[in-house]
Parts: sequence; structure tokens; C-alpha cells
Amino acid sequence: MKMKWYSVASLLTVLTSSQGILTTLSQSNGKYKYDYATVPFLAEVFKLIVSSVFLWRECKKSPPPKMTTDWKTVRLFPIPSIIYLIHNNVQFATLMYVDTSTYQIMGNLKIVTTGILFRLFLKKKLSNLQWMAIILLAVGTTTSQVKGCGEASCDSLFSAPIQGYMLGILSACLSALAGVYTEFLMKKNNDCLYWQNVQLYTFGAIFNMARLVLDDFRGGFEKGPWWQRLFNGYSVTTWMVVLNLGSTGLLVSWLMKYADNIVKVYSTSMAMLLTMVLSVFLFSFKPTLQLFLGIIVCMMSLHMYFARPSMLVDLPPTVRSDPESLVNVPVDHKTDS
Amino acid sequence: MKMKWYSVASLLTVLTSSQGILTTLSQSNGKYKYDYATVPFLAEVFKLIVSSVFLWRECKKSPPPKMTTDWKTVRLFPIPSIIYLIHNNVQFATLMYVDTSTYQIMGNLKIVTTGILFRLFLKKKLSNLQWMAIILLAVGTTTSQVKGCGEASCDSLFSAPIQGYMLGILSACLSALAGVYTEFLMKKNNDCLYWQNVQLYTFGAIFNMARLVLDDFRGGFEKGPWWQRLFNGYSVTTWMVVLNLGSTGLLVSWLMKYADNIVKVYSTSMAMLLTMVLSVFLFSFKPTLQLFLGIIVCMMSLHMYFARPSMLVDLPPTVRSDPESLVNVPVDHKTDS
Repeated sequence: MKMKWYSVASLLTVLTSSQGILTTLSQSNGKYKYDYATVPFLAEVFKLIVSSVFLWRECKKSPPPKMTTDWKTVRLFPIPSIIYLIHNNVQFATLMYVDTSTYQIMGNLKIVTTGILFRLFLKKKLSNLQWMAIILLAVGTTTSQVKGCGEASCDSLFSAPIQGYMLGILSACLSALAGVYTEFLMKKNNDCLYWQNVQLYTFGAIFNMARLVLDDFRGGFEKGPWWQRLFNGYSVTTWMVVLNLGSTGLLVSWLMKYADNIVKVYSTSMAMLLTMVLSVFLFSFKPTLQLFLGIIVCMMSLHMYFARPSMLVDLPPTVRSDPESLVNVPVDHKTDS
Repeated sequence: MKMKWYSVASLLTVLTSSQGILTTLSQSNGKYKYDYATVPFLAEVFKLIVSSVFLWRECKKSPPPKMTTDWKTVRLFPIPSIIYLIHNNVQFATLMYVDTSTYQIMGNLKIVTTGILFRLFLKKKLSNLQWMAIILLAVGTTTSQVKGCGEASCDSLFSAPIQGYMLGILSACLSALAGVYTEFLMKKNNDCLYWQNVQLYTFGAIFNMARLVLDDFRGGFEKGPWWQRLFNGYSVTTWMVVLNLGSTGLLVSWLMKYADNIVKVYSTSMAMLLTMVLSVFLFSFKPTLQLFLGIIVCMMSLHMYFARPSMLVDLPPTVRSDPESLVNVPVDHKTDS
């Protein structure tokens, strides 16, 4: 493995952060000129093409890549898509009860649920300090999102009916489940990553296409069938949004196989903060004290989670082995036997 | 030593928290019916009386308490009072440049400056994790104070001239210096605590009296000399404010001798949060999301600073010695040789 997990994670942070900015830039007057639902579909197709090309190249090599093709394994690959489908609907239902600010704040809950499901389903052990780091990451991202004084629609924060919060928690659990399940799938056997991707994205493309078809039926074909809407109103920026979304997906797959869900959670949380910092410069977004405080908390959390214990606490000299490796490699987590 | 440092620290937290609430209760229609400057003076007198009584009791015992009475040592005891005097004037000057919200937020800086001076002057070594805990404590208390939406005078936050911030930093350094110097004084020799207190509070009472006299001259004796104003408008609550302030002072002295400045900083920070939580119930103060987030960050910080490393990270079994002691005793800090 030539690539290091933290290089991939950093790249994911930068691309995820660009995603928010590109999406904003692709709008004109705050509205999409294209059908946004076509973007994830095209991104799935892009990932499928890239993974197929890589797989085809691997197949020409000797030895050929390891590929499990029995139905017992292949049938597991649509499951992440199914979880995401349910998740999307729960998200939609949540937004009927809560306002967008509360919804955004509740989204940070998935950091904690990912930690819990990561522990329960993948049987990865985390130290107390790592648990504290995960909670601090959620607190830090939430802090950065606290509305400043004078901002609109803040009285409504946490004044939604109880169903809203229940759905928010369910949403956080489903999001975490999809991630943890994908990690399980990628690490289940030592199949070639590209072959696993091809399976994952084939089902991803199918499910996204099904959604477009469903939208057509719901809308009574008023805007024509989905394939006619596919590139309608697409600008260069829209294509960049597609390519960017596809690339982040490929990086996430890589992390699921060679690192883990917690690394992904840190990448995307840092991306959220990076987006807010970049927005200060690009969209003259007013920086708040809480953004600054949130960033400090998240940085501390990052260091607490990934730094070697010997860098954090004073240990007897015998414990300070392996001084060259400065950070914990996430694949080194102890697995319960 | 019968008392444990964490019992004293907890008691200090409760009393410091009561101080804010009692002070609010002692006001009528948001105004003081008495001269507030008389309160610290009477508190110094109260501490002096209590310490004298204890010292007198100790003197009757055998062996008599250790008391260093040479001028070389005694002359060091007015120094904390002098630092506090300068600090008060810097505070006053700071408030001419910055608004009270910014002033309150900047006050959290003293947590970090105390850590720095504690390291530099008392030569106490802190682990990286403990440094991170101190920064998180400052971030947590600041987070809890971030003004919610719709609250007044928030546009002015951090829009003060640069002098205001410089004075704020100076104020944080002076406050930390007074604490660190007092700790140095109390631990300098193994003199009886009560004797050290008697010296400290004699000078404290003198300096506070000097302030009252100065106020008289400044005000042109319009309200009469200070001894006439002393108990003017005092209610039972005002007396409780005095006794409470005196008691917290005695506890701080104890902590300076048998624990350290960082323990004191944690006590008073936790007290600030406790006051805010109690205000929700007592003064129908509206709880904010940032208060909740700040409390979580401070709790994590507390655990990071005081928990034994073996409780936080996974260490090889040989390191896990002394399983009965669950928390770090602050006097155990390593001192540079």
C-alpha cells in the first residue's frame, strides 16, 4: 500500500470542503438551474467507470485480483444503498418537524452514533480518551454552528415536537449504520478494492436511477423523463460538483477498506470547519467567536484521538517504544477476540 | 492532613457559585443599597479573625506551630495584595475600552496564563494532555458565555480598540501572577498555614482599608468617612456575602498550600458554570445550547487533567500500578530539578 491513510483523509477533507463551495457556486441566485437529484446518480456512474477501468487494469496483471463472485457475498452490496434510501426518507420526514438549524445541529449526533456502532458491530475497542475525543468532536462541530446574535430564526431552535428529535436520532443511527456496514463489507475479505467498488457502485447507480424514475412518476412526467433532464442546465461548475462528489466517494471507499469509519468522520468534520473558514473569505460569511472555539475543540479532539499515548501522558521509559511512528495507525485498533 | 484536596475544591466550587447568587440577591432593583467596596474589607477582617483563632489554638498545642517571623519572609506577604491592587486598576482601565461581554470573555484567558506562569515560575511540569485540558477548560467556559441569538449588545463583541485587548491580556497575567505568587509563598516553607494566613490577611485588610480611605478622598467625603459607611444598608444577605467571600478566601489559601493553582482554577471555572445552571432555576435565566456544550467541554477537560493516565489510555499491564488511587493528587506534580 503506497498511499498513507492520513494523506487520503486530508485529500478527502479538502474535496468534501470544496463540495459545499462548488455546490454554492453552481447555483444562480440561490437556486439550482439543474435537477440536483441527477448529481448523485452521475457521481455513482463516474465512480463505477473509474473503478471498472482500474479493475480491468488489475485483471491484466499477474496474479489477477482476488474477486469473490458468489451470490452470498454479492447480495450484501446493495445493503448500503438500501440503508441510504431509508436514511433519505427519514431525513425528509425529520425536516417536516424541525427547522433547518436544529436539523444541522442534530446532524452532529452521527459522530457519536458512528463511534457506538463502530464499537458494537465492528468490535473495535477505543480507549476512554478516544471516546472523549469523539464526544469533543461532536461538541466542537456543534459549537461552530451555534447561531450568532442577531441571526434570524434562532428562537425556533429546539422547540420542535418530540417526533422531530426521535427522527433525528434515527437519522443519525442510520447514517452511522450505513458507514459501519460499508466498512464491514470492505474488510470482510481481502477482495480487490476495485471489484468491491464495482459491486457497490453498480447498486448505487441502480438505486439512484430508481429514485429519478420515482421522481418522474411523482411529478407526473411534467418535466419530461429523467434522461431528458439529465444534463439540463449543467454548467462547468455542475460537472465539477459531479466529479468532486464521485472522487470523495472513491476516497471514502479507500478509507473504509484501509482505515476506518472514525477517520472518515474526522475528515468530514474537519471539512465542515474548513468550509466555514473558506466561506469567510469567499462568501464574506461573518466569522463568529463560536466558530473559532469550535475549531480549537475539534483540533484538540483530533490530537487526542490520533496521537500516540506516549505523546500525551508521561509514561515510564519502557513504554515509549517505536519513537519513529508519530501517530496511531487506525487499522491497528485492537479487535475483541 | 485530614481533608482531601478534592473535598476542599468541591466546597470552594459550591461557595464561589453561591457568591454570585448571594450578591445578586443582596441587590434591590439591580442596585446595591450598601457600599460594595466595604465587602472585601470585612471579608479580609473575617479571614484574619478566623485564622488568628485557629493559630491561637495551635499555639497552645505541643509542639507549637512552625512560624517564621524574620522580616525577610514577612515582607513577601504584602506582595499578593499589591498585585491585586494593580490588577484592580488594570481591570478598571480595561473596562474603559471594552464592553462587559468582551471583558467577561477575555477573563477566561487567565486559565491559560495561570497554566503558563504555573509552569514557568513554580517549575511544575504538565503533560501534553494536561495542557490540552487547560486550553479546553478556557474554551469551554468561553463557549458557555457566548451570547445567544437576539441578546443585546453583541455586535460590539471584539470591536474594541487594540489597547483594550492588551490591557485584557495584562489583566489575565496579573491575576495569574497573584495566584502563582501566593502558591509560592504558601509552599515556600512548612510554616503553619494559620500563621501564613494571618500575615496574608493583615496586609489584605490594610490594603482594602487604604482603598476605602482613597475612595473617601476621591469622593470628597460626600458620603462621610468609610467607617460610617461600613454597615450602612447591610441586610442579612449582605452579611452572608461577606461570610461567604471570607470562607472562599480561606479555602483558596488551603488549596494554595496543599494543592495548587490549577485545582483552584478548575474550582472557580466549575463554579461559574454551576452559577449559570442555578440561574436557570433561580432567576429564570434562559439556558442556551452553548451553555450545555461548554459544560460538556469543561467536564471532559476536568477528567483529562485529573484522571490517571491508565484510566485514559491503554497501557501495558506493568504500568497500571496502584489501582486503588483513582485520581492524580495535584501535589504529586513533578518538579524540575
